[in-house]
Amino acid sequence: MSNTFGNIYRLTDFGESHGPAIGGVVDGMPAGVSVDFDEIRRWLARRRPGQSTLTTSRKEADEVRFLSGIYEGRTLGTPIGFIIENVDARSADYEELRHKFRPNHADYTYQAKYGIRDYRGGGRASARETAVRVVGGALAMQVLKQHGISVNAYALQVGKATEPDAMEREIRDARAARDTVGAIVGCTVSGIAPGLGEPVFDKLQALLASAMMSINAAKGFDYGSGFDGAACRGSELVDTPFFDADSQKVRMRTNHSGGIQGGISNGEDIYFRVAFKPIATLPQPLEAIDDEFRQCALDLGGRHDPCVVPRAIVVVEAMAAMTVLDAMMMAKAASL
Amino acid sequence: MSNTFGNIYRLTDFGESHGPAIGGVVDGMPAGVSVDFDEIRRWLARRRPGQSTLTTSRKEADEVRFLSGIYEGRTLGTPIGFIIENVDARSADYEELRHKFRPNHADYTYQAKYGIRDYRGGGRASARETAVRVVGGALAMQVLKQHGISVNAYALQVGKATEPDAMEREIRDARAARDTVGAIVGCTVSGIAPGLGEPVFDKLQALLASAMMSINAAKGFDYGSGFDGAACRGSELVDTPFFDADSQKVRMRTNHSGGIQGGISNGEDIYFRVAFKPIATLPQPLEAIDDEFRQCALDLGGRHDPCVVPRAIVVVEAMAAMTVLDAMMMAKAASL
Amino acid sequence: MSNTFGNIYRLTDFGESHGPAIGGVVDGMPAGVSVDFDEIRRWLARRRPGQSTLTTSRKEADEVRFLSGIYEGRTLGTPIGFIIENVDARSADYEELRHKFRPNHADYTYQAKYGIRDYRGGGRASARETAVRVVGGALAMQVLKQHGISVNAYALQVGKATEPDAMEREIRDARAARDTVGAIVGCTVSGIAPGLGEPVFDKLQALLASAMMSINAAKGFDYGSGFDGAACRGSELVDTPFFDADSQKVRMRTNHSGGIQGGISNGEDIYFRVAFKPIATLPQPLEAIDDEFRQCALDLGGRHDPCVVPRAIVVVEAMAAMTVLDAMMMAKAASL
Amino acid sequence: MSNTFGNIYRLTDFGESHGPAIGGVVDGMPAGVSVDFDEIRRWLARRRPGQSTLTTSRKEADEVRFLSGIYEGRTLGTPIGFIIENVDARSADYEELRHKFRPNHADYTYQAKYGIRDYRGGGRASARETAVRVVGGALAMQVLKQHGISVNAYALQVGKATEPDAMEREIRDARAARDTVGAIVGCTVSGIAPGLGEPVFDKLQALLASAMMSINAAKGFDYGSGFDGAACRGSELVDTPFFDADSQKVRMRTNHSGGIQGGISNGEDIYFRVAFKPIATLPQPLEAIDDEFRQCALDLGGRHDPCVVPRAIVVVEAMAAMTVLDAMMMAKAASL
Repeated sequence: MSNTFGNIYRLTDFGESHGPAIGGVVDGMPAGVSVDFDEIRRWLARRRPGQSTLTTSRKEADEVRFLSGIYEGRTLGTPIGFIIENVDARSADYEELRHKFRPNHADYTYQAKYGIRDYRGGGRASARETAVRVVGGALAMQVLKQHGISVNAYALQVGKATEPDAMEREIRDARAARDTVGAIVGCTVSGIAPGLGEPVFDKLQALLASAMMSINAAKGFDYGSGFDGAACRGSELVDTPFFDADSQKVRMRTNHSGGIQGGISNGEDIYFRVAFKPIATLPQPLEAIDDEFRQCALDLGGRHDPCVVPRAIVVVEAMAAMTVLDAMMMAKAASL
Repeated sequence: MSNTFGNIYRLTDFGESHGPAIGGVVDGMPAGVSVDFDEIRRWLARRRPGQSTLTTSRKEADEVRFLSGIYEGRTLGTPIGFIIENVDARSADYEELRHKFRPNHADYTYQAKYGIRDYRGGGRASARETAVRVVGGALAMQVLKQHGISVNAYALQVGKATEPDAMEREIRDARAARDTVGAIVGCTVSGIAPGLGEPVFDKLQALLASAMMSINAAKGFDYGSGFDGAACRGSELVDTPFFDADSQKVRMRTNHSGGIQGGISNGEDIYFRVAFKPIATLPQPLEAIDDEFRQCALDLGGRHDPCVVPRAIVVVEAMAAMTVLDAMMMAKAASL
Repeated sequence: MSNTFGNIYRLTDFGESHGPAIGGVVDGMPAGVSVDFDEIRRWLARRRPGQSTLTTSRKEADEVRFLSGIYEGRTLGTPIGFIIENVDARSADYEELRHKFRPNHADYTYQAKYGIRDYRGGGRASARETAVRVVGGALAMQVLKQHGISVNAYALQVGKATEPDAMEREIRDARAARDTVGAIVGCTVSGIAPGLGEPVFDKLQALLASAMMSINAAKGFDYGSGFDGAACRGSELVDTPFFDADSQKVRMRTNHSGGIQGGISNGEDIYFRVAFKPIATLPQPLEAIDDEFRQCALDLGGRHDPCVVPRAIVVVEAMAAMTVLDAMMMAKAASL
Repeated sequence: MSNTFGNIYRLTDFGESHGPAIGGVVDGMPAGVSVDFDEIRRWLARRRPGQSTLTTSRKEADEVRFLSGIYEGRTLGTPIGFIIENVDARSADYEELRHKFRPNHADYTYQAKYGIRDYRGGGRASARETAVRVVGGALAMQVLKQHGISVNAYALQVGKATEPDAMEREIRDARAARDTVGAIVGCTVSGIAPGLGEPVFDKLQALLASAMMSINAAKGFDYGSGFDGAACRGSELVDTPFFDADSQKVRMRTNHSGGIQGGISNGEDIYFRVAFKPIATLPQPLEAIDDEFRQCALDLGGRHDPCVVPRAIVVVEAMAAMTVLDAMMMAKAASL
């Protein structure tokens, strides 16, 4: 619950943006898996700020330090604790936020819920927390690869643009306008066997939706025919099954179902979309309230991303990888 | 997990469409609540088939029988067991399905997962199971009402239509064409205090998304600015806060956030949408495969709904009510 | 939590002693298992009152009715709902208890916790609830048998007696004296593979202890050398390992460890003890308080057991069977 | 599950004895609690080796470093991550154990379960892990104190001795004999309100039993009249209730129930016992097997404790404190 994700493969996640460190514990990792540390670093690098002109100029080293659960390069089956120290935490930049609530942020809601908050850099609500998810997902991915499963996320839309060049231009335009812009990220999971997902409440799409909607700034999720399918007739979306002699598998001639039927994978590619709002941290003056509920002005400066793309892509992959591995382990348990 | 929904307020759900009965267990219901049995019956009536010319002509009495957890009309705080006997189960109608897998259904995936299935009426994957959710939701609603919270779902779109008369016409047209049609249902939750939802993985939107995506035929979920917001600039979606002297509360001038910021309710209305695919049970001949993976013809007949609307509306309300009550109880635990 | 037992193989349990029915839901049952209904009836018969002169003369038919999860005699992998109707509920006998709290019972504590209680026959706290556990355990046992695992409980001590005849005499003497008497039940689980149980908090002995201490009237649990081993030197309790050429397995020359080392099974027999207090429902006048906290007299009559033995034995087996099956499924999940 | 303890107040625990660090994450800590870091250090000091002539001479600094969830000395309500670096890890001492399984230890069972293990210092199965529990318990205790609750554990028996001086002598004698000795630890929880614990599976005694039996070397648990009560008649153990005019509370004239009736606290002191086996690491030559299942000799040297007392006492308190706080938060959730 709350700061733990998953049933069998579980990530417990902690840390504030400007505290000493963020980190996590992966419990339920299968034993004996050789850990590719370079691959984990590459995943973290994809999430890291400052990597291109499209992202914030903040530097975060994001060096992960593994503390347990791995011995001589292989997993022990015991929990994998890890931390990422926080550096370049220019907390003084945030002094203005000690008493002011940023609009569209978690500042007011955390204060309302807890009566206290770490206002520096968004505290617990900072997207910095997603680095922990990336480590959990990169570890999960190493198991999935052994089973021939791939997970790939990609930008489908940025603002009103749906072509790569145009999407990049939308981000530059937003930044130039001292503004931010929304996006839709797609993701495809290939190589899954039929039979993942549980009936009723733990349908595979419900698990994926929960995973994706827990990412900062996510506002929507759909899979297969999705929202567009609501405008369709049933006869337009029939996925006719057939036995494929080549692969010796049941296949579908089309995949409007998005690889899931009745909550359970059917062996076709799973594909889904995640809608992200424009990042709420606007580099322009805003009207806000302070902690005595007085109207005030607020200027957050400019060290922020104009769009969740490209950095959110690896986070979507990480959450998908953990969800799929967990579902595989659930299914395995039942195969006793 | 799996057939249990929720953390503190939990519904465990069982039953196949043509077995002896479906039913559930509500664990975590607060003690001392007077149960309005008529209200529960009204909720069940809203989900029941045969209630209007827009729905299937099948009759399901859906009489719920409470077995525990209620004494002299009040809840005991102990688990509330209940069952709904299955009647009018014309299982013979389904004999053809013993060896055939309906396209876009759970038939093949259940067989792949379990190596066995109850093929009659969809078995565990039947939407009949949602009657259990309606009971769980109606009970939750009785607690929410005491706290001044309302939950209202409604049709936003049927096929390509967005106006009531046109939506009704879409359903009649689909039926006349021996077809089915998709829909989008909206839902608004009002009267919620700030502070519900947990950081990171149990964000309120993640809990709601999981709840909604677990409903049969749901293909998408969004809240607040949702998928449309992905095309926007951040400056278009700022919800400026202010202190409302009348209500003595912090309010937002707009509500693009959909009542949730940083995963936690801010006191404004929560609103979200659920996209449903056209019902997969088409009243027209289809190409299918049988359990020896041979191509075959299939005719499912006509005793089915042409659209999830209007019957899914109360199911959306039920899932929302349970989610919100559970979040309230989680928040209460932390207030020690 | 609370009324649900287990992680993967899960029993959710409901019902008051004098409500319409008690019942449960088994979720996580593997699919395709042939159900031996006669065996389940035999287990229930072992728990049923009125079966010998050593137990209460109350009659409980304890007919279990399965509602889901089983089709044509085999499990579907979906949740198995079941109920046992309450009959011979002479609730009028309990009218005196509407306003009085029985000493050493749950009457006062339920009232303190919930502000309401079903006072008839102990309500939710009645040992009648254990019939539900017996069904859950009997189902688990059918899977365990397929894996060559046996679970056997037995009386080790009744009052001060440790020999069968003497134990029986202790029960008759207690009844004759209008009194009740305590007991210790032992249990042995054989045929378990090494590797069950999880490190740290879900050690196999912790899972078993929780299971046993949840049984009504249980006051103590130990395993292997147990409480007696506290008086020993380490050198007295060494289980020397060796490789057994016959079975081609690692074995231990002695089994002071009780089949568990470091929380994980080692392949030797698991054995443990459960201490039960004398049943609190004494057939003699008692001093009590009423719900206005006034001192009062109370006479509970004589329709009760003088000792948990022999009826608790099958309940111990049921809880052990569910615990072991759940641990096997947990271990299986990790074997991905 | 597994490496996470608790439902609402949850400790996730990681770390091997000779890995870089051990640590944990406390999730569910109430917000706004002032943290007394000195008190946490004092608790850790009570568990630390090398503190008296009765314990091992190993030095462990056990400096806890808090990484999140605390800001300006007060808890944020967000997860509290912490680590304790491993120092003085003389791993070379353990080289002999790379291929040998110590009798009565987790070496063989971990190998059987995972196919891999960190053999240095017991790895994950080392009692060093309990330092993490002590931090979790010390944090819980700070909340309990605000509610007037105290938790005190103490040695009841060491070997055959039950008097302080004699117990100390048993430990010295065992060490002199190059042996170890068992013990029984008692614990009393005072100041608890009636109403903690849940019916059926989460009875307060079941939660406590699970907590205690998860501690390394624990072999038994009982509470109230416990194992001794099994030899008694019911009439000997009646706790007669009365209304105490001074405290304006319902009290019991005796407390054979151990403060719990029907699984729920009644307001009297909760007291229980935990039996510990003699520590399995004997400072004398032993017969063992190696990882090719050949018989071999083993000498573990002398840097180990001769008895879990006195160091286990604070671990018992820590587990009791977390259990009670979790039960209080569960009860609070239901009070909506």
